Order: sequence, then C-alpha cells, then structure tokens
Amino acid sequence: MTQPKVGIVMGSDSDLPVMRDTTEVLEQLGVEYEIVISSAHRVPEKTAQYAQSAEERRIEVIIAAAGGAAHLPGVIAALTCLPVIGVPIKTSTLGGVDSLYSIVQMPRGIPVATVAINGAKNAGILAAQIIGVKDPAVREKVRSFKQELAGAVAEKDKKLQELGVTAYLEQMNK
Amino acid sequence: MTQPKVGIVMGSDSDLPVMRDTTEVLEQLGVEYEIVISSAHRVPEKTAQYAQSAEERRIEVIIAAAGGAAHLPGVIAALTCLPVIGVPIKTSTLGGVDSLYSIVQMPRGIPVATVAINGAKNAGILAAQIIGVKDPAVREKVRSFKQELAGAVAEKDKKLQELGVTAYLEQMNK
Amino acid sequence: MTQPKVGIVMGSDSDLPVMRDTTEVLEQLGVEYEIVISSAHRVPEKTAQYAQSAEERRIEVIIAAAGGAAHLPGVIAALTCLPVIGVPIKTSTLGGVDSLYSIVQMPRGIPVATVAINGAKNAGILAAQIIGVKDPAVREKVRSFKQELAGAVAEKDKKLQELGVTAYLEQMNK
Amino acid sequence: MTQPKVGIVMGSDSDLPVMRDTTEVLEQLGVEYEIVISSAHRVPEKTAQYAQSAEERRIEVIIAAAGGAAHLPGVIAALTCLPVIGVPIKTSTLGGVDSLYSIVQMPRGIPVATVAINGAKNAGILAAQIIGVKDPAVREKVRSFKQELAGAVAEKDKKLQELGVTAYLEQMNK
Amino acid sequence: MTQPKVGIVMGSDSDLPVMRDTTEVLEQLGVEYEIVISSAHRVPEKTAQYAQSAEERRIEVIIAAAGGAAHLPGVIAALTCLPVIGVPIKTSTLGGVDSLYSIVQMPRGIPVATVAINGAKNAGILAAQIIGVKDPAVREKVRSFKQELAGAVAEKDKKLQELGVTAYLEQMNK
Amino acid sequence: MTQPKVGIVMGSDSDLPVMRDTTEVLEQLGVEYEIVISSAHRVPEKTAQYAQSAEERRIEVIIAAAGGAAHLPGVIAALTCLPVIGVPIKTSTLGGVDSLYSIVQMPRGIPVATVAINGAKNAGILAAQIIGVKDPAVREKVRSFKQELAGAVAEKDKKLQELGVTAYLEQMNK
Amino acid sequence: MTQPKVGIVMGSDSDLPVMRDTTEVLEQLGVEYEIVISSAHRVPEKTAQYAQSAEERRIEVIIAAAGGAAHLPGVIAALTCLPVIGVPIKTSTLGGVDSLYSIVQMPRGIPVATVAINGAKNAGILAAQIIGVKDPAVREKVRSFKQELAGAVAEKDKKLQELGVTAYLEQMNK
Amino acid sequence: MTQPKVGIVMGSDSDLPVMRDTTEVLEQLGVEYEIVISSAHRVPEKTAQYAQSAEERRIEVIIAAAGGAAHLPGVIAALTCLPVIGVPIKTSTLGGVDSLYSIVQMPRGIPVATVAINGAKNAGILAAQIIGVKDPAVREKVRSFKQELAGAVAEKDKKLQELGVTAYLEQMNK
Repeated sequence: MTQPKVGIVMGSDSDLPVMRDTTEVLEQLGVEYEIVISSAHRVPEKTAQYAQSAEERRIEVIIAAAGGAAHLPGVIAALTCLPVIGVPIKTSTLGGVDSLYSIVQMPRGIPVATVAINGAKNAGILAAQIIGVKDPAVREKVRSFKQELAGAVAEKDKKLQELGVTAYLEQMNK
Repeated sequence: MTQPKVGIVMGSDSDLPVMRDTTEVLEQLGVEYEIVISSAHRVPEKTAQYAQSAEERRIEVIIAAAGGAAHLPGVIAALTCLPVIGVPIKTSTLGGVDSLYSIVQMPRGIPVATVAINGAKNAGILAAQIIGVKDPAVREKVRSFKQELAGAVAEKDKKLQELGVTAYLEQMNK
Repeated sequence: MTQPKVGIVMGSDSDLPVMRDTTEVLEQLGVEYEIVISSAHRVPEKTAQYAQSAEERRIEVIIAAAGGAAHLPGVIAALTCLPVIGVPIKTSTLGGVDSLYSIVQMPRGIPVATVAINGAKNAGILAAQIIGVKDPAVREKVRSFKQELAGAVAEKDKKLQELGVTAYLEQMNK
Repeated sequence: MTQPKVGIVMGSDSDLPVMRDTTEVLEQLGVEYEIVISSAHRVPEKTAQYAQSAEERRIEVIIAAAGGAAHLPGVIAALTCLPVIGVPIKTSTLGGVDSLYSIVQMPRGIPVATVAINGAKNAGILAAQIIGVKDPAVREKVRSFKQELAGAVAEKDKKLQELGVTAYLEQMNK
Repeated sequence: MTQPKVGIVMGSDSDLPVMRDTTEVLEQLGVEYEIVISSAHRVPEKTAQYAQSAEERRIEVIIAAAGGAAHLPGVIAALTCLPVIGVPIKTSTLGGVDSLYSIVQMPRGIPVATVAINGAKNAGILAAQIIGVKDPAVREKVRSFKQELAGAVAEKDKKLQELGVTAYLEQMNK
Repeated sequence: MTQPKVGIVMGSDSDLPVMRDTTEVLEQLGVEYEIVISSAHRVPEKTAQYAQSAEERRIEVIIAAAGGAAHLPGVIAALTCLPVIGVPIKTSTLGGVDSLYSIVQMPRGIPVATVAINGAKNAGILAAQIIGVKDPAVREKVRSFKQELAGAVAEKDKKLQELGVTAYLEQMNK
Repeated sequence: MTQPKVGIVMGSDSDLPVMRDTTEVLEQLGVEYEIVISSAHRVPEKTAQYAQSAEERRIEVIIAAAGGAAHLPGVIAALTCLPVIGVPIKTSTLGGVDSLYSIVQMPRGIPVATVAINGAKNAGILAAQIIGVKDPAVREKVRSFKQELAGAVAEKDKKLQELGVTAYLEQMNK
Repeated sequence: MTQPKVGIVMGSDSDLPVMRDTTEVLEQLGVEYEIVISSAHRVPEKTAQYAQSAEERRIEVIIAAAGGAAHLPGVIAALTCLPVIGVPIKTSTLGGVDSLYSIVQMPRGIPVATVAINGAKNAGILAAQIIGVKDPAVREKVRSFKQELAGAVAEKDKKLQELGVTAYLEQMNK
C-alpha cells in the first residue's frame, strides 16, 4: 500500500456524500489519501492525536470538513504545521453560512484554507495544487485536469451553437 | 483563599474589557471565580488540560469567551461534563455574528449555553443561576439582584415622569 | 409519580416534533420532566403563572422552545430565578435566524442559555449538565452518554476503514 | 390635564434619545401622549399591568420601543386589544436586525405594527394615522404634515437648481 | 352591498394563496373588505388612483402585500393619509428578507405598519384592531378572537397532558 | 442571418434554464441575440476574447449570468466599453446572495448593471431599453410590452372581482 | 444651454455628497446632465411627472439614488421606457443591504440597472456606456477614461516597486 | 537578489495597510516575496500576464487581496496551476461579507484558499505552510512561530494571574 499524502477528516459520516467529491478528484489526480471520521467534539482526543501525528506519518495536507459550529478544521490546524483545508458543509437551517464563518474566521496565527460551502471537489484540487509545489507530476495532473475542464466547457458551447437553446434544454431534461 | 466555582476562560486578553462585566457581576453575586487566558488555537494543550481538570478542581460552571471562529467554548465543552457558557465577542468585520454562529450552532451531544454578543454580564448571572440550583444562598443573591434591576427601572421611570422628556435627556447628556 | 426536575414549555404544538428530541434524551439520562404547551403571546397569564410557580414546584431548570419572534424563553426568564434554556425553532422564511436572535440577544440582567437552531437534544443534555452540578448521579449519566457518543463515532470510523467510501455510502443509502 | 391617547413605552432610558422623535412629532400633530420606562424583562409585572390597563385608561394606540431581543412590543400586544406599534432600536452589534426580527416576526394572532429600525418619528405618524380613522381633526393634521414634508422637498430642489451641486454642498457642510 | 372598510391590494395574483388568510380572518371578525390586484410597477397609475381615492371611498385601512422589491405598500402610503399595513411576501431566493426590508425601512414621514413575512392573518387582525379604535363592536370581536386563540392553546395542552408526547405526535401525523 | 445586438454569456449550461427567459423576451421584443457558454474561470482566454471582440463584432449590450463567486459579468466588463448587464443566479446554499454581491459590488470604474437574482427576463428587457436609446423601433416594442403587462394585471383583477377569492384560487390550482 | 442626456434624481439632499461622484464623472466624460431632488414618498406626483416627461424632454438615461426602502428607482422605472440606473445608498443601520435589495429585486417586467452600494461614480460611467451605444464620441470618452484608470494603477504599482512597502505607506499617510 | 517564492497581488493600494501584515509575517518566517498592485478590472491584461507567468518565474504560491466584488483571487486562480490564497478585504458597507463570498464561493475546478476577512497575516502563514510541504527549513520557522504565539499567550495569562483583572486592564489602557 502506498503512503497517503492527503488526510481527509470528517466530523460525521453524514458529510460523506459531499466528501466523496474529494476522494474522487484525488483519485483522478493520482494523489494518495486516507479518510477518517473523527469529530472535534465527540472524540476530541482522537482528533488531537490525528492532527499531532499527521506530520510524522508523512501526510502533507489535511482536508477537514464540518458543518454548523464546524470547529474541526481549526482544531486540527491548531495542532499541526501542515496546511489545513476546510470544507464548510451546508446546513439545513442557515445554508452553511454558519459553517463558513466558523471555518474561515480563524484568529491570527492559525489559518485554515477555506473553500466554498460543500466545495469538496475544490478541496481535493487545492490539495493537489499544494502538493504540486513539491511534486511536478502532480502539478502536471492538475494542468491536464484544468484543460479537460476547459474542453468540456468548449464542447458544451459547441453543442449549444449547433442545437440552439430549445433543443439543448430538451436534451438536458432527458 | 476560597475555592472558585466558576472558571472564566478567554481566548485573548483583548476580550478582557468585555469580560470584566462577568467578574464584576460574579463579585456582586458572591460567587468565587478564577479567570485565565487560554486560546483554543494558540495553546490547545493548555486549553484541553484546563477543561479536563476543571471538574476535579471543583469548578462547577465554565464561562468561555471568544470572537471570530470562536472555537473556545465548544472545544472546552467537548472535554468536560460541566455546563459551559459561551460569550460571543463582537468582531469589527461581522459585528459578532460569526462568533455567535460558531458558539451556538454546536452539534448534537455537546451543548454550549450561549448568551448575547458581548453578553458577559449575563454569562455571570447565568452561572450564578446554575449554581443556585444547588446553593440556595446564591439563588437568593440572584433574586435580590433582579429586584434591584427592577427597582432601578422603576426609579428611572419615576424620574422621567417628574422631569419630562426634555429635562431627562439633558441630565443624561451631562 | 416522581417530581419532575425539568419543565419543558413550547409555544405551539407544531414545535413538538422537534422537542421530542429533548424528552427522549432526558429519559435516556434519567431526568424527570414535565412538558406543556403555553404561548407567551396567546396565553400570557398562563405562561407567567407557569414561570412564577416553577421554583416552588421544585422545577430546577426550564427549557423553552419558540420560533419567529420567539419571546417565550425570555418572557419566562423574566419571571423566575431558575436557569432557562432557549431552543430557537427553525422557521420556513428565515431558517430560524429570527428565532435565534430573539432568544439569544437578551438584555443585561436576564440571560437565556441558548442552544443551536432546532437544538432540542442539546437542550436536554445541557439541562442534565446543570442538574449534574448538584446531583452526581446525573453527571455520571452525562459522562456515560458522552462516552457512548464517542464510541459511536469510533465505530463508524472503523466501519469506514473496513468498507471504504463507496461501500459505506451504499450501506448509508439502503 | 388632557387624556393621553398614545402610550409610549420604552424598555430602557437608553432608547429615549431615539424616542424623542416620537414625542416631538406627536406634539406637532396635536396628539396627547404619555411616556413610560417599563422593561418586559426587568419589570414584567409592571409591563403587564400597563398593557392590561391601557384600554380602560382610554389609551387608543400603544407605541413600544426595544432593542436586541426586543420582546416589549410583543409582550404588550399579547395583553391588549389595542393596536401596538413596535420600534426596533438599532444595536451596536447587529445594527438592529435582531430588534427588527424580534418585533416583526410575531406569531399568528398577535400582530405588532412594525416601523423601520430607529423609526421613532414614523411610529408617531402611524399612531396619528390610526387615531385619524376616528378623529378627522387628527387626520387633517397628518394631511398638513405630509404637505409640509412635500413642501420641504420642493424647496430643497428649488435651492439645488439655483445653487448647483457644489454650492449646495458647501452650504450643507456649514 | 355593505361599505368595505379595509382595502386589500396585492401586486400579483401569486400573492393570493397567502392573502386569503387576510380575507378569512376579516370575515371571522366581521369586517367588510375589498380586494384588488394592482401592481406598483406594472400599473402605477391604477395603483395611484386606488390609493388617492381610498379615503373618499370611505376605506379606513389599506393592507398591501408584495414580494421582492415590494414597493406597493410604500407607494400607496405615499398617496394617502390612511394607515397602511404591509405584508412582506416570502421569496424563493431570499426567503422574504428582501420584501421585509423594502416594506419596513420607510423614510421619515411615510410609515408602513409592517407585519411578519407572509403574516397575512396578522394583517387582518391589525386592521381590525385599528378599526376597533373607532368601533367598539369590532374591538369586542378581536377580544373574542384572542380568547378563542387562548382556548385553543389550553385545549392542546390539555390533550398533551392526557395523551403524552408519543401519542400526541401520532395523532398529529394522521 | 441578421447581426446580433445582444451577446448573452453564461458560465455554465446549468444556467440555461434560467437564461431562456432572456432569449424568449428578446425574441418577443424583436432584438437579435447570440448566446454562448464561456466560464470566466474554466476558459478565461475564450471569455477575454469574447469580451474584447464584442464591440467590433457590433454587439451593443452584453448580458452575463453567473452563480456563486460569479465573476463572469465583471470580468467581461473589465474588457469592453459596452454596457454589461449581470444576472446573479440563485445558489442552493446561499440563495444567490453570494452571486448578487459578487456581481453588484464592482469597484469604481467598472460598472455592471445588475438585475434581480434569477432576473433573466428583466436582463432582456433592460438590454432592449438600452438599445431603445438608439433605436426607436425597439423602444416602441418595449412600450407595447409594458402595456401588455399592464393589461394582464388589469385582466387578472377583473377576473378576481368577478370570481371572488375562493373561486379564483380554485382556478389557479387547476 | 445644452440638452441634458442624463437625469439624476435623489430622494433626499442627504444623498448629494454621494451623488456628487456621479455629476463629476459625467462632467469628465462630457455628458450633459440635470439633477433634481424628488422623493418617491414625499412628493410622489412630482416624481411621477418627472419620470413620465423624461422621454419627451429627451433625457436618455435616468439615474436614481435612494436609501432604506429605496423605492425611487423602481417607481421611476415603472413610468418610463428609458433605462433606469439605481444607486443604493448606504444606511446607518443595515449598511445599505436594505437599499440594495429594494432596488435590485424588481419584479419581472420592470428592470432597474443596479450598481454597488454608494456606487455613484459607476452609475455615471454606466450611463455614459449606455449613451455610447448611440454616440461614438461618448464611447471614446469612456475608453479613454478606462485607459486613465489603468494608467493610474500602473503608476501606483511602479511607485510601490520603487519605494517598497514601508515608504509607500508612509507617503499614503501623509 | 533572491528569488521570491510568494507573489502578493492587491487590487488597489488602499489594501496595502492590511496587506503589510502579510509582508511582515513572511519576513519573520524568512520567505522571499514580491508585491504588486494589479487590478482584475482596471488592468485585466496585466493581471492575466502576472498570473500566467508566475509559475515559470518560479513563484510557488500567490496571495491575492481584494474587496467588494473581489474578483482578483479567482481571476488569477483561473490562469495558473499554483495554489492561490485569497484575502477578503473589509468593506465600509457590508463589513467584507461581499468580499468573502466573492472569493470563497468559487465554482468546481478553480479553488481559492480563503482566509478570514482582513486575514492578511494568516495568508502569509498559510503560504509558508504550503512552502513548508517542500522546504523543511520553512516548516521549522512555522513551528517556531507557533511556539512563540503559544508563549505569548502563556505570558499574558501569567501576567493576568499576577496582576488581577483591574490592574491588567489599567496596564492595557496605558
């Protein structure tokens, strides 16, 4: 088994349907990862241990997802010198603005690299970009990935020009 | 020296001008307290230790104040069975709505008893009310305190009836 | 019949599906409770009577739930020296941010211990923590409860490590 | 002394600098008023008594001002059949959006006629409009008042046309 | 046909499902009304005419409902000396906070008596309270209405005490 | 084929169901348009090219729609002297308030003419109004369009007067 | 005297310090304008007249500024086929988010081209861009204006490279 | 002169007083940087060139600061495979929530690592943490920096224990 470079931590398994976007994009970008459930509030010691041991276990970037009070990314960032990416999970009451504020508004000294609400895919890409600072092969994967994205947009536009608005919408709704 | 019953924790000494309201009201209500600076992010181990040892040190209620991401109250609540009161500190950018959401929106299992933004005085009164569940003398102090509050309102109203609006405002501005 | 220690008050029976979380967790923690419907606005005298008589009826903590203008917890807190816990109910228009502000932003002198929007379960746990200040048996129940929570997280993580992301998600969706 | 028709209630004398706008405009419109300080939380019985006795004391409209949790207008509305006008007071933390939500989001059955944040002047005018439903003399005063307002705008515009932008601004800053 | 005392104006027929609450409660309170569709933006002249003629047509209170930019209540208030009640309609994008701000934040001189988002029922009750200032029969209807409300709450509570939480919820879900 | 006067740009084909409102109203108003998919972030060079070439290709107004960070309208406005209309697309997390702020809060020097969240129809009408500054035929179409709108409101009101509230609602729900 | 092409309308002379940015930039861009004070609420007939006569008076674009309920731009847009630009004025209570929502969230059929809160300068530039659709000379002025903006940024950057951060900040604070 | 590893870009020199925190912390952490003024809207080509050339100029991380519509970080992220850190600048109208949303809510494919509003210091630390993935010397500097932070908190707490609340506050205010 290969050494994981990205450690993904979720506060609850209810975040997993969102965070699957992260694991999928990391696989696409050829970045090894591990993924654990470890709540900052329900299992604080386990979370602390995870954060403190990550560096020596040769994790290079941590991605932490949480909703509501969403302390997980900040709590981990307090206990490691690795870059920590935070994914604010959408909440049913406040739409995720609570998660966003709790993750992004970190005090001076302890940053969390915050992505969009439910931005799990971007968390994976950002992790790859960070690893790409060190590993040119990963950077090239990111570059290809972005070119594919661009290609997909171009193709959709081409199709729109061919079909026109009405036919395009009909195809979308199929 | 007497055994403190309330432990007050602040993330930063910049919260002290607000939190003085807590210490003052606790003194008024005859409740012993201790007050420490201990950031959830900058000194996470010290904070954990504080939370974990509070119960055996016979603290009965913890009051934690924090602004912005404001993880302190929740991080402490995760590590103790004592009731934890959270004071969201006003922030210069978002007015404290970030602090409020981060403190109040705790996940199932780990409550934080949240008071108003900058509601340091009420945090002290709430702590006294909680101790009053056990200690009738403290409850009587709370009762007197509320009567004094009522008396002060009645007196102001009396003065307003005597002076009228204009003269009352003039006295206020003096 | 045993003496209830927690009084739960709802402004409307439409809050009951949420507040059942409170009654369930109190039963789990072995804390006796009573539950009444009593609106601050529709039956103000009954609500006042409830608040004023709670202490002599040996209630130790009051939990009040309300949505929208959500005055119930504050109105009760004005009329008792007992600690009052407020549960902001989610609203269909503003997601419960109206309920939250109305409950948490109490004026100096009259605190309400506010939990998360729809945080009915945490209201029950907080009530038990408060009673635990006096009653060691209840505190031990809270301690066990938190250990069970921790155990459940650990078990989920174990299952995730065994199954992997895809299989875990499949099981969740069953 | 004449019978007051409008009862103005404030939760705190800190609201008086704002509420003076109400008293001034009522004087301008020739509507008798009384003004009292009576907090919903600090002196709940006095407030209840005020609300319950207002109708028989021949008050016709109540204006209540409050900030933060701002329960005063709703608490009064619960105890009277008179129309109640609510003035949300600006708060230093949330700008008054807390006061606004707490006052306007009343449950079905108990309306509060809410005006703008710090809209004390409009509260007075609205009270006069309500009394004007019964009393044609007051309605005529409202009509004249609105014509004066219109006149003042017209005059300012005339001055702007004469002076031009630069000179007008210079005069404003004097 | 009787003389209507309340004029209800909606910006669009899409507001009618909400505003039926107003017509129903007015019928219950025995207050005659008329109801028209007249947009401030799409038929501004018709709206102006409606507002300007209302007083001489012996309308006593106007209720105006609108969503989004929601100018209708303010536009009408500008053109009449009658009290105008505004009902902010919930919007699919911002939950109605746009409607609320547009209706309640009126400038000095032109108040709109604002009720809760989708608070159509309360708009009707408030209109009846205003008419009750003049007409004791309507006030008595309001008084009975509030007593019925209180009775309904008391009955629900009685049922809850009899059935207990579980059985009550089962009945609700039937 | 005729020369298009309005260029519609979307960041993603997921915006097309909303933006069809724009194409439909432009067809109704007899204004030629082109519509392309071109993301500010995924295909920045293509977007830049589109913006820079629009003027010489004789486009007169650009309409750009985007959600979330929603940079597309501003990015285009930076690269053209044509008027640019921005349509903030509703988002599932924040309701579109993110899109709105990102589009409307442009810095001094580079305006974007912003319409309502999902206000695609109004974007088309605004484009026609702008072209109407130059082309009287288009202005007349706008005038007729507004008269039709007014007529539709009048007709609905007429129908409401005939049917009454209950029957009207029944017809709506069919 | 030349024919004004842009009509600027403010609800109050308190908006003039902000709106001077509009007049200044229009002068810079060589676009003739007129500026009037005319409130949608205080002088509704005058405002209606202004809007209805603008087209025949050969105004080509209207700029309307308002704060709070901020109905002015929408009320004008309802009465003209000219493009209307709305400037939301910052408010002391809600920072201008009330003004923004009231101006931008217009219903289908009646767009207002909204710029940033206090975005008076951009309102002028947008007006010039609209006139530039018809008048190439104005478009060239806009082009030069944007080039000057670009030049100013380049110059500041050059100065920063020469001076370094510390010296640059010292010069700024002088 | 040494090769800079961090490229700092500001939309305007008005952001410099905030962004000096970034340059100071980078100096403290021994990380070479360059800093330029380059607006996404006023000099879009220069900004594009900067972003596109950064990688080959051996920049490893880009920090971009912007306020309001705040497109700069996203526009740069679209044109590079380097990790981009975004600093939302506080705005006078919306407190920076506009900047935050515009920077953090990036679409799938193009992440921006967002820090707190005005979180310029944390942007520098995060950049160092990212470079630390590759360069152990920088990581050690980050580690020391965090230890210093912890030490400073411990010292403040020690001083508070020695002085007590009153004397501590007196010293703060000196």
